[in-house]
Amino acid sequence: MKALLAWAPEPFPEVRPGDDLVAAIAAALQAAGLAAQPGDVVVVAHKVVSKAEGCVVDLRQISPSPRALAVAEQARKDPRLVEVILRESVAVRRVRPGLIIAEHRLGFVCANAGVDHSNVGLGEEFVVTLPPDPDASAARLREGLRGALGADVAVIVNDSHGRPFRQGTTGAAIGAAGLEVLRSYVGEPDRYGYVLRVSVEAIADELAATANLLQGQAAEGRPVVLIRGAGTPGAGRAADLVRPQEEDLFR
Amino acid sequence: MKALLAWAPEPFPEVRPGDDLVAAIAAALQAAGLAAQPGDVVVVAHKVVSKAEGCVVDLRQISPSPRALAVAEQARKDPRLVEVILRESVAVRRVRPGLIIAEHRLGFVCANAGVDHSNVGLGEEFVVTLPPDPDASAARLREGLRGALGADVAVIVNDSHGRPFRQGTTGAAIGAAGLEVLRSYVGEPDRYGYVLRVSVEAIADELAATANLLQGQAAEGRPVVLIRGAGTPGAGRAADLVRPQEEDLFR
Repeated sequence: MKALLAWAPEPFPEVRPGDDLVAAIAAALQAAGLAAQPGDVVVVAHKVVSKAEGCVVDLRQISPSPRALAVAEQARKDPRLVEVILRESVAVRRVRPGLIIAEHRLGFVCANAGVDHSNVGLGEEFVVTLPPDPDASAARLREGLRGALGADVAVIVNDSHGRPFRQGTTGAAIGAAGLEVLRSYVGEPDRYGYVLRVSVEAIADELAATANLLQGQAAEGRPVVLIRGAGTPGAGRAADLVRPQEEDLFR
Repeated sequence: MKALLAWAPEPFPEVRPGDDLVAAIAAALQAAGLAAQPGDVVVVAHKVVSKAEGCVVDLRQISPSPRALAVAEQARKDPRLVEVILRESVAVRRVRPGLIIAEHRLGFVCANAGVDHSNVGLGEEFVVTLPPDPDASAARLREGLRGALGADVAVIVNDSHGRPFRQGTTGAAIGAAGLEVLRSYVGEPDRYGYVLRVSVEAIADELAATANLLQGQAAEGRPVVLIRGAGTPGAGRAADLVRPQEEDLFR
């Protein structure tokens, strides 16, 4: 029998810019009686990573450009928020009242280029952006947790993304360290000896989705999930999950 | 603390057309010492559902149409397999050597319209198609499992789908019964009282992805996963997860 176990310790303390997120994660796991083991995966909601890294923007400091004003009118959003979204994006793909779908500079296609107003906790005038390099964030957290937990864990930084073709958002890995993010079955025999021709599984996104089930999106405050029994040590990065546009036959 | 537990009993017996899948699932869970509880979610790989329901095609019986011959030449695939793919599809979206991305009649956009050569186990000349109505399949399995397990479980039938924008496949719910497939956070306050404006989480797809981590895709033979601690009873159907094209701003 194969088993997967996932735990989300709570409460998790409020995170503010400059906070020691490694210490907060280690303390929350310890308080919940969770002892990490080598090979476990620690999934951390990007929101707390962003806040600890200071990726917080005070909208009162933002002067919207003419382009931001135009997009804001179309989207019926705060022009200062739109300015931040545009600064984070390499392309705006769709604008509708209430919705901007943009391609983030890191390649993620998502609502508002990952700029988020919710769960910021610093006041209505503050928004959070994605960390500048979430793979590096994951690697730093992993390095810190190795010391704090005494176990070689993998780390995923996750977010919730909407998707083409399907309703609703699912957890997606935007940063990763210490694990195989894509598992290839190409060339392996199936249980009847038939050789699988094209099959690559996005393990890190599936782990991000599993964590999302426990994290919730509203008032729950469970940004950290420890997962045991899935995931293979490796050197993958979440950047590997971004499909180059020219190879993207699903679009 | 919130916890999610998932178990995949093995070995799982080979399934053939006409087999009693409810009995096979109940026996596998029992042999693994797993007692289902009300609210648990049983995720079943569509392959065994399709086989039990007889959704198996003998390619020797298929005469490819002129269109299938043309697409097969472009895709460098067996024209008889392509004929089956075309019969399952409402639209072919992309064809490249080795790849056909089609819109299945149920709305799923996926490789080969879900027609699969692997893990069939009946010989090289056989392929498996998706069940005609996976939501109805899930409802029947749920009804049967309620009796066999003595617990009111939810059921998801899952498959692995490739995605636009991102590399690799992830588990997706193509059939569901007894649970909320989409969870809306619209109008709920976040932990700081900020009201979330647009947030709907595709719970059933995240459960399908969690199960996929344990099912594997090659020779493992773990088509059934019991998940505890996530999922809310409800009356959702996997058909609700298909985003109508005219509303799909992500495309």
